[in-house]
Order: sequence, then structure tokens, then C-alpha cells
Amino acid sequence: MELLEALCRLPAPSGSEAPLTAFLLEYIEQHAPGWRVQPRVLAGEEFQDCIILCFGQPRTAVFAHIDSIGFTVRYGRQLVRIGGPDAEPGYRLVGQDSQGAIECTLTVDEQTGALGYEFTRDIERGTPLTFACDFRQTDTTVQSCYLDNRLGVWTALRLCETLEHGLVVFSCYEEHGGGTVKFLAKHIYETYGVHQALVCDITWVTEGVHAGQGCAISLRDSLIPRRSYVERIRRIARESGIAHQLEVEGSGGSDGKELQHGAQPWDWCFVGAPEDNVHTPDELVHKADIDSMLRLYQVLMREL
Amino acid sequence: MELLEALCRLPAPSGSEAPLTAFLLEYIEQHAPGWRVQPRVLAGEEFQDCIILCFGQPRTAVFAHIDSIGFTVRYGRQLVRIGGPDAEPGYRLVGQDSQGAIECTLTVDEQTGALGYEFTRDIERGTPLTFACDFRQTDTTVQSCYLDNRLGVWTALRLCETLEHGLVVFSCYEEHGGGTVKFLAKHIYETYGVHQALVCDITWVTEGVHAGQGCAISLRDSLIPRRSYVERIRRIARESGIAHQLEVEGSGGSDGKELQHGAQPWDWCFVGAPEDNVHTPDELVHKADIDSMLRLYQVLMREL
Amino acid sequence: MELLEALCRLPAPSGSEAPLTAFLLEYIEQHAPGWRVQPRVLAGEEFQDCIILCFGQPRTAVFAHIDSIGFTVRYGRQLVRIGGPDAEPGYRLVGQDSQGAIECTLTVDEQTGALGYEFTRDIERGTPLTFACDFRQTDTTVQSCYLDNRLGVWTALRLCETLEHGLVVFSCYEEHGGGTVKFLAKHIYETYGVHQALVCDITWVTEGVHAGQGCAISLRDSLIPRRSYVERIRRIARESGIAHQLEVEGSGGSDGKELQHGAQPWDWCFVGAPEDNVHTPDELVHKADIDSMLRLYQVLMREL
Repeated sequence: MELLEALCRLPAPSGSEAPLTAFLLEYIEQHAPGWRVQPRVLAGEEFQDCIILCFGQPRTAVFAHIDSIGFTVRYGRQLVRIGGPDAEPGYRLVGQDSQGAIECTLTVDEQTGALGYEFTRDIERGTPLTFACDFRQTDTTVQSCYLDNRLGVWTALRLCETLEHGLVVFSCYEEHGGGTVKFLAKHIYETYGVHQALVCDITWVTEGVHAGQGCAISLRDSLIPRRSYVERIRRIARESGIAHQLEVEGSGGSDGKELQHGAQPWDWCFVGAPEDNVHTPDELVHKADIDSMLRLYQVLMREL
Repeated sequence: MELLEALCRLPAPSGSEAPLTAFLLEYIEQHAPGWRVQPRVLAGEEFQDCIILCFGQPRTAVFAHIDSIGFTVRYGRQLVRIGGPDAEPGYRLVGQDSQGAIECTLTVDEQTGALGYEFTRDIERGTPLTFACDFRQTDTTVQSCYLDNRLGVWTALRLCETLEHGLVVFSCYEEHGGGTVKFLAKHIYETYGVHQALVCDITWVTEGVHAGQGCAISLRDSLIPRRSYVERIRRIARESGIAHQLEVEGSGGSDGKELQHGAQPWDWCFVGAPEDNVHTPDELVHKADIDSMLRLYQVLMREL
Repeated sequence: MELLEALCRLPAPSGSEAPLTAFLLEYIEQHAPGWRVQPRVLAGEEFQDCIILCFGQPRTAVFAHIDSIGFTVRYGRQLVRIGGPDAEPGYRLVGQDSQGAIECTLTVDEQTGALGYEFTRDIERGTPLTFACDFRQTDTTVQSCYLDNRLGVWTALRLCETLEHGLVVFSCYEEHGGGTVKFLAKHIYETYGVHQALVCDITWVTEGVHAGQGCAISLRDSLIPRRSYVERIRRIARESGIAHQLEVEGSGGSDGKELQHGAQPWDWCFVGAPEDNVHTPDELVHKADIDSMLRLYQVLMREL
């Protein structure tokens, strides 16, 4: 869990992913020599702050977004949201501007709901702030801000250790309207002919998806993946014997949305562990579901 | 009207279009030998569940979506919408899960508006349900669920009988946010250089568009097609002497939305008969408007 | 300011940009011989009503949308909006249908907010109407409808006079959901490899951005441009000594939205003067901010 903690502690809200990209590229350089197959690494200006790892002869691509939710400093002591963070007065926020490190407190106007901060000084316009990370574990759970989606990133990196054929893609901007999967999907389809995707992300504990009962396979959220593809995934999951749950929602979205709306015929399906306390500093995931998620990805990437 | 009835009876909500695709491919194989020109048929994995028919030297493409609205089974006895179906308690819904055929009744919670079903057993998660089809005719009207857009599909198939030059495209997912026209439009533009489109779909009877007074040419809905293209269509329609009406709306959308927002310079215009009881099991269209719609397409595909 | 006034007077709401395109092509033909560098001019059916000017070896593209907000005539005496115009009873609107020139008055139903018009006769369905232009100047300000974005177009044309390397792009449909930047961005990226953009448009005077204090550099609106790119722009602006302001918003959008969501890895940043009385017939901009905007573009196009 040290890797997961390091990922959760690294601020990288949508638009400011570069430090996490640098961390990942260094991690890949250090650890790839121990992986079963050496991937080609695609990164650099043509991919903005995204990374594509290509293993063997790929048939399927795993998309894990590296960005997180957060806040941007506006005027006076106002904040505006990056993505859809929960906002409770008293949440501790961290950041950095030209005057130095920032650790401030979130305020919420009781009447208007307007967001602000309390701090010893004014923070410069446009500075991004993120939740202060308090990483906690028990025997059965892990809790932190940004498990969504650092846990997806962690799963993708662990998957790399044994992956023989497939693409692992680290995308940006998922929490704030997207914007990188469109060009990643185009590049992948045109370069490798791959049009099968698994969206490696974290979902919600609900009345139908329970903590500790296995990774969720989403049959739909606000969008509906193609039924024939989802049925193949369900069959592989069933035959694997790995604990998993079926999710059906009418709202919510993921990198799947950009695949659905892109100009290539991608099939996609969201496969990810559920979390409690969504988009708060206290996101909570059961370790059994993390284990199920990693094993399910290992099987799916072999069988699809 | 036998063909139209067969099309209306075949369940194919967004994401589950495959059975209708199979029906169309078989229909085309059987009937194309009797058509004036033999089309090339483009289908298969590269096109998901869509079909492109290419006749002669095409200048214009007709887009008819094959999917319908419906419902997805969630948890307990909850339903979530596929697209925007009308929901009245008592509507009969049909479907199929691994336990067999389903014929159940829609429920709507009076307080919350939450959708559900009544049935002799629980239906499996993720099962799609559609309106039970009650196909009715009089001398002047036809009434059924899913005239939107099986009537557009019917018109496109009838158009094929005499079409010399043009593309007929059967798209998916129109009722639920789109997702196939982007890659269809890209393929067509790059392969044939075609960038003129007619959206072959069904619109609404309103205070300005009346049943029985001819097919509607939409001057705008939530989006605005390019005026110069729409003016050409209006001129051809006027000179043809075929009854038609001009529609102007501030809301609503169609496959034209994906053409407008794609990365090719498509011109598009919605041309379709108006219906009453939109998105209910009782959609109603006048036969005079169906006749006008087919004849207008025949002329437009010759003249554009 | 004669050029600016001519641009403001020319009706060209989204979908009906063709007359302004013709004006610009003629202006370019007349004036380009006096410019420092002769641009290649890309226009015609492949670009709909858009124009691309290519100077030297471009590294950065300037996007200025040529369309404006307005109204479409519906049924009876109803109007629906093109984009998001302000609507006050009494605004004078102009247009043209087959019966001749129109000058009518906007009405707003007090109860429902429904829009309509008063005129001596019925106006034909689908006719676009725009604000009547009352162009006014003082020593320090200019006031008119459609400074958003005829002032951006003016700035782009003035920029052409001295531009050595760069692309100047005149786009359409920005006020009504977009639809041309996607194919423009694709063409530019694939032809020139350019993926740096400046969005040359007009923003709002707010509590944080004041009239007369310089052109605004937007650090974000509803979307968030990539921080590393915006930081480069801020540095160049700072070192130039040209007056400018930093904007941070949680809402609003621009052509940047289509660049963000396209299938090429574009970086983009909104750089434009602020205006008061946004989307009314009385948009007001300080001349000092116009001057700052033009000079900032000149520097940015050299340094980026």
C-alpha cells in the first residue's frame, strides 16, 4: 500500500496532472525491468500529460485517469470547483503559489453555498487546491482522499507486472469534463486497431453494490455500453470465480463517455471497486474489493 | 405496412440494437436484388451494429437511427430510463432475461416519480425492457410504439428501391446520447467525400406542424443547421410540389447533433413526418405524411 | 474604428455567417498586399463559412469566432434564441425575409418570459433576427451590439498586418454550441502540426476583472486549460510589460471547449478584453483594453 499512499499524496487536479505524470514515468522506468513483458512507453508533448504503455500484441486497452477533483482560487477568498468535490466547512486544503506552501481550511457560506477559504494570507488567483491527504488503513479497509482514481492507477500499475498483451493508458481531465481520451482513443485505434476498452476507475457503494462483495462491473451509468461487449465481460467474470457485483445506474460517467462519443467504434465497460464517502477526503474502499479488482483485470486482459 | 409492423415489434433499445441489425441485413439480402441499383453493404465489427448502404456515386447520406427508447432494470424492482420514454403507470413492458420471457407493468411512484415494475418474479439486473407493441391502423393513420424511428427506417428501406446515387445509413444510440454517427460520419467523409446529410427521423405535432399536412423540414431545433444548405432543401421541396411543412423549434435534437459536432464539415437537415403522443406506446402518424416523407426523400436524393 | 463598426453592423448570427465570410474574404484580398507577410487563404466548401489564414511557419493558431447571438422567428409571433442573447422588451431587431427588410421590436411575456416581436406584418418562419446596431464611441470607450466577437475579429485582422508566423482562424457557431472548430482543429493539426491556440474573444467585466485595466488572460472558465501552457502565457505577458488581468471563472465557455474536446492534443487559452452589458445591444469595451489585447496578441504570437 506504500505505492497507493504515495499516489494519493501527490496533488494532481484536472489541468495540473504533470507532477503525477513525472512520478509515473519514473516509477515505470524503475519497475518495468521486473515486469514479465517490457512495454513500449508513449509519452511527451503529443500526448500532453498522458501515458500509454503497450505490451505485446494488444487487443484491449485499460484506461485509468490520473487527475483528481479539487478547487481553484478565484477572487477575494472565493473558490470554484474542479470537478465535483464534496464541500464541508473545515476540510483541510493544500496547495502552492509563488509565495510558498499553502495549508488552508474550506469555508461554505450557509446561505449561498459559496465556497471560500480561511488562511493567514490571500492566495494567488488561479492556484489549484486539493484535499490534504490523511491516508489510513485497517486490516480490511483503506481510506484517503483521491482513492478515486489513484486506486485505479495503482491497479493498472500492478496489472503491468504480469501483463503480456494489452495497453495501459493513463488519462487526464476525467473529473472535469474530459479532453484527453478523444486523442488517446484515436491514436490507439489508428496505431494498433484496438477498440476494446476497460475503464479502470472507482464507483459508488449503493443499495445494489456493497462494500466487500467484490469489484463492480457496470452494466450502465448515464451512458449504456454495447450489450454484446458487456455480456462477454460478464461471462469471463462468472467463469473466473472471482467475486464481483453488477452495477446499474442512471447517472454518473467515466472515461467511457469519451470513448462512446469519439470517432472510432470503441466498446467500453467500467470495471472498478466501489467506495464509500465519494469525493470527500475520507473515501473508503475494502481491501477485498481491491484484490478482486486486480484479479479481474488480470483475467479480463487475458481472455478478452 | 407489414414491414413497418415487423420493425415496430422488434425490441432494440439503445445499446441492444443487434437483433434489428440482423433483421435489416437479412431484409437487404432478400430485397436488394429487386432494387434499381445494387448497393455495397458495409457492416460488421468496424461499424458496431450500424449498416451503411452505398448506391452509385453518392453525394448525400440519409441517416436513420434504428434504436428505440426503453428502460433498464436496476435493483429491487426499480427501473431507469433508456433515452426519454414517457412513463405512465400501467404501460406494458416486454423483455427477456436468463429465466425467460418477461411481460410486466410499469409503475410510477406518485410522490417521487421513481419508476418500477410489477411482475411475478424479480427481473435480472441490467435487463432492457421496451414497450409492448400494439400496432394499429385506420385508413388515414398508423399507431404503435416506436414509429420514432422505425418509420424512418421504413422510409429509408423504401427509398432504397429506387435510389440511384446516395448513402443510406442505419445508426445506433440516437435516443441515448449518440455515439455511432461520429465514426460513421468520419468513415463516409473520408471514403466518399460526402458531407451532405438528411436526418430521416420522426418529429412532433405542434402548434406549427400539423398532422396530415405533409412531412416537416426542420429549420432548426436545439441546434441550427447551416442556412445555405437548408435553403437549398426548401427550394427543392417547393419546386417538387410535394406537401411539406416548415418546423422551427428551440429544443430537441437528432443525429444531426453528432454531425454538427464531428470533425468533418457536414451539412445536415432534419426531414421527417410529425407524430402525436411522442415517446409513448401510442405514437400516431398520418399516412399522408408518410407518403409525403418518402416522396420528398426520393426527390431530395435526386436533386441535392 | 471604421472597420470595427462595419463588422458590428453586418448581421451574421450562428448558422447564417456567410455574409460576414464574404466581407472578410474581400477585406483580406484588398488589404493583404499591405501586410508584412502574405498569408495562404484557406476557404470554401471544405471549411463551410470559416477561413484559415496561414502566415509563415506557424506554431500557434488564433481562433476568432465570427458569428453572433440573435433570434429565430418561430410560429405566430414567437421567437426562439440563437445562443444566449439578453432579452429586454423594446430591443430593436432587424432581419430580412422574402417580403423585404424587417425592423421590429422584441417583446417578452411578463408571466412566462416567452419571446416575441411586434411588427407591421408576420415574419416568415425561420427568419433570423439580430440586434439593430447603434455604434457609439467616446474618447475612452466603444459601445455596440456584437463587440462579442466582432472586436475579436477586428483584433485578429489587425494582428495580420504584422504577423510573421502563425494561423489566424475565423470560426462559426461559437454562440450556439459550436461545430466548426472540431474540423478546423483537425485540419490544422494534421496539416501544420500546430497544437497551441489562443482564443481571441471577449469576456466579462466582473468583481475581479475591471474595465480599462487591460486584456484578460483567463486561467479557467467552465473548462480548465492545461496549467503548463497558461503559465507560459502568463510569463510572456508579465515580461512584455503590457497591462493585463487574470480571470478565474467557474462558468462560461469559448471555442476552447471544442479544442479541449477534440481528438488532437491542443493547448488553448482564452485571451480577450472584458466588456460590460454582455450580450445586449449595448456591449461596452474600453479602448485601453482593446489596445492591450492587440499588443498582447502581437507579443504572444512572436514568443509562444
